[in-house]
Amino acid sequence: MSRQTARVREVGPRDGLQMVSSILSTEHKLEWCRAAAKAGIEEIEVTSFVPPSLIPQFADAREVALGAVAMGGFRAAALVPNLKGAERAIAAGLPVVNYVLSASEAHNLANVRRSSDESLKGFGDIVALRDAAPGAKTILGGCVATAFGCTIQGDVPERRVIEIAGRYAEMGADEIVIADTVGYAAPLQVRRIMSAVVKEVFPLPVACHFHDTRGLGLANVTAAVEAGVRAFDASIGGLGGCPFAPGASGNIDTEDTVFLLEQLGLATGVDIEALVALRARVAEWLPGENLGGAIARAGLPKTFRSNAAHD
Amino acid sequence: MSRQTARVREVGPRDGLQMVSSILSTEHKLEWCRAAAKAGIEEIEVTSFVPPSLIPQFADAREVALGAVAMGGFRAAALVPNLKGAERAIAAGLPVVNYVLSASEAHNLANVRRSSDESLKGFGDIVALRDAAPGAKTILGGCVATAFGCTIQGDVPERRVIEIAGRYAEMGADEIVIADTVGYAAPLQVRRIMSAVVKEVFPLPVACHFHDTRGLGLANVTAAVEAGVRAFDASIGGLGGCPFAPGASGNIDTEDTVFLLEQLGLATGVDIEALVALRARVAEWLPGENLGGAIARAGLPKTFRSNAAHD
Repeated sequence: MSRQTARVREVGPRDGLQMVSSILSTEHKLEWCRAAAKAGIEEIEVTSFVPPSLIPQFADAREVALGAVAMGGFRAAALVPNLKGAERAIAAGLPVVNYVLSASEAHNLANVRRSSDESLKGFGDIVALRDAAPGAKTILGGCVATAFGCTIQGDVPERRVIEIAGRYAEMGADEIVIADTVGYAAPLQVRRIMSAVVKEVFPLPVACHFHDTRGLGLANVTAAVEAGVRAFDASIGGLGGCPFAPGASGNIDTEDTVFLLEQLGLATGVDIEALVALRARVAEWLPGENLGGAIARAGLPKTFRSNAAHD
Repeated sequence: MSRQTARVREVGPRDGLQMVSSILSTEHKLEWCRAAAKAGIEEIEVTSFVPPSLIPQFADAREVALGAVAMGGFRAAALVPNLKGAERAIAAGLPVVNYVLSASEAHNLANVRRSSDESLKGFGDIVALRDAAPGAKTILGGCVATAFGCTIQGDVPERRVIEIAGRYAEMGADEIVIADTVGYAAPLQVRRIMSAVVKEVFPLPVACHFHDTRGLGLANVTAAVEAGVRAFDASIGGLGGCPFAPGASGNIDTEDTVFLLEQLGLATGVDIEALVALRARVAEWLPGENLGGAIARAGLPKTFRSNAAHD
């Protein structure tokens, strides 16, 4: 009997670190990857190829990417905001490259000074670059940020989110990632939008990237699972707070997300206790940061059984 | 067009305070009730009629109950563990009295040194007391604790939870409350058990009491709503941590629960900003306590519209 599976992608070394004040060493970033992979995480977003002048945390993007690729045992991914970033990521030999644009015009304009249509055109250039590159074909993820609302413009038209996902698919994306960048998403909206996106880009895989800013992160994961989504971005200890909301949790927590997915009957192949141990080390590496995480605090229920153990 | 509604019952002055180290003054307990009622909360569990030797926090149970009843503007409820507690609660004129027993035999035995069947028999005595009392008929809630698992015995048979709910209904309960006392519940289980309970006791109203110990509190509320539940216990700032898990959040957070229910399209009639203001006062009254709450931290989304405002 084949059991349904779900994938949790660790994005801590990228999204988790984007806002922390201290620069984590390349060595610790790679140790994070090694331990997460050993716990059973199959894909890790290891860095972001943004200009180091913008985010000094990612000045070692190339070293981290090379180290992660050399390490093996997991698929290493990076986020890229533009063609230049994609060139660097592909040159480093990363098997997965994720491009991001905002469905909110106001947010996209503020971030990259382009309309979302212009940003979509930019994705076309990255696909061409990928197709022309020698060696194994890089997997390209197309990410739609601010898909559930935007702190600048407020509502984001759902039709536009679905349209961008469809355009990504037509242009050659291998996976679609729908992101609640600002923590506005709620379950009914998630189920509606994700059902439409899954249908629109079928048979491409679709992932969700939720933040837990307003406490609904795991309720939104549940809703997305109901809509057919089987891959989720998350960060150890929920790292990734917003600088404008002190103490606000950022990404959903990797340990808690794995726990929820297993409770939803999906086999993740991940050892939660090993993640909790990794969380303790990350907490040591980032002494100023306030890590969240309910399972790390309360422990697994006595009644918990991972689905993998039953197969 | 009539909109679906949901009810959030503030249990902070009871379950929220059960574990805090400092004794809150009667005056502050009543101020808590006054402010919650002003924010639109219709029912508040104001105290617990347990022996003061067991929980000194509730030594003023009678004063709080009398004060709450005199205040008006909301339905005041109390928890009672036995007939003696029910006598005191009914004598104080409380319109709602909630009786509790555990579906876990091990937990019930540890708590009240009786089997759950003996505890059910005890509910019969309370119904008789209520029926014989003069004046307005007290509303009796029958609460099933450890309905989703137990820290002592582990699994709790789902059939037993449904059976106890049915027995409560037959014996004269006016409402059934299903409680995840230890924070073990997960969405699929909640949907399955709550659908069965709602059907079993129809047309009696059914409420859920979730703890957020393992981060799934609001995902469980969503699942219960899908199963037809329209009333939820919650505590301002998620107060109510377990003494054995320092920092663990206890009850689901009233502000966040109202936010979620409104996002699920249910009108609660509650002013979230007023609850956030009350939370700040509760935090002042209990300086040692670590209050949670995502909405208090991050604020409402720019896209938020309460359902009441649209009617």
